[in-house]
Amino acid sequence: MIVKELTEQECANILAANNMGHLACARDNRPYVVPITFAFADNHIYSFSLTGQKIEWMRANPHVCLQVDDFGQDRGWKSVVVYGVFEELPDRIGSKRERDHAWSLLSKHANWWEPGGLKPVMGPGASRHLFYRIRIERLTGRQAVDE
Amino acid sequence: MIVKELTEQECANILAANNMGHLACARDNRPYVVPITFAFADNHIYSFSLTGQKIEWMRANPHVCLQVDDFGQDRGWKSVVVYGVFEELPDRIGSKRERDHAWSLLSKHANWWEPGGLKPVMGPGASRHLFYRIRIERLTGRQAVDE
Repeated sequence: MIVKELTEQECANILAANNMGHLACARDNRPYVVPITFAFADNHIYSFSLTGQKIEWMRANPHVCLQVDDFGQDRGWKSVVVYGVFEELPDRIGSKRERDHAWSLLSKHANWWEPGGLKPVMGPGASRHLFYRIRIERLTGRQAVDE
Repeated sequence: MIVKELTEQECANILAANNMGHLACARDNRPYVVPITFAFADNHIYSFSLTGQKIEWMRANPHVCLQVDDFGQDRGWKSVVVYGVFEELPDRIGSKRERDHAWSLLSKHANWWEPGGLKPVMGPGASRHLFYRIRIERLTGRQAVDE
């Protein structure tokens, strides 16, 4: 096996084909990482969360890193690393379009609220969930292939 | 589904039963996350890596976070988060015992060097790999269960 770099387009294809990744944030130079489900569109990663440590930390420091695994057949694997900036999509009129967009993208997958979360409920006053997106600043990726 | 906290012992059991996780480190308050294979023993996470961004960052700031997923049957999932401190096991006489211990633990799994790495080679001057461990400072975990 050798490891080779992926192009940006190959990285984007992997983001489009997957809906689970691991999101890292940092506070006071201490990292924190959790699994998330996401949807990729328009140079953004869309996701949601209950409020808690992850949201608090990203509000304090919006620089985040998302890593996505893509296991192929046999022994091959691909890994994409996204560097980006957290942006909240608050439950206000001004963000309704982005929230609806996020909901529409995310809910294309079965059981799209797992793992790591409880299913959000849309509608007036229904949800304790926060929708957010990550503006992608940089993409890198690697692939292991047979020599 | 409801989400409940795991005890430290339950977290330790999940670390013992798995050998893949996602390791986050931070530099200048920017996070970075990659998949690793690991072995858990004696309050430490043992692993190895080629030198590169991850090792450089952990040398500069040894505070790390490892997250481990444990997918059960049906829709249940468990997630453990380890907060700890990076410690190198350099290729010197003084670290031989810990390196051999790490090798012995890690190589119990088939294909234990994947994903995210190339297989290390032990022996005189053979390896460009660095062995390291994470001293666990704190463990937390969650589990989703049917109501």
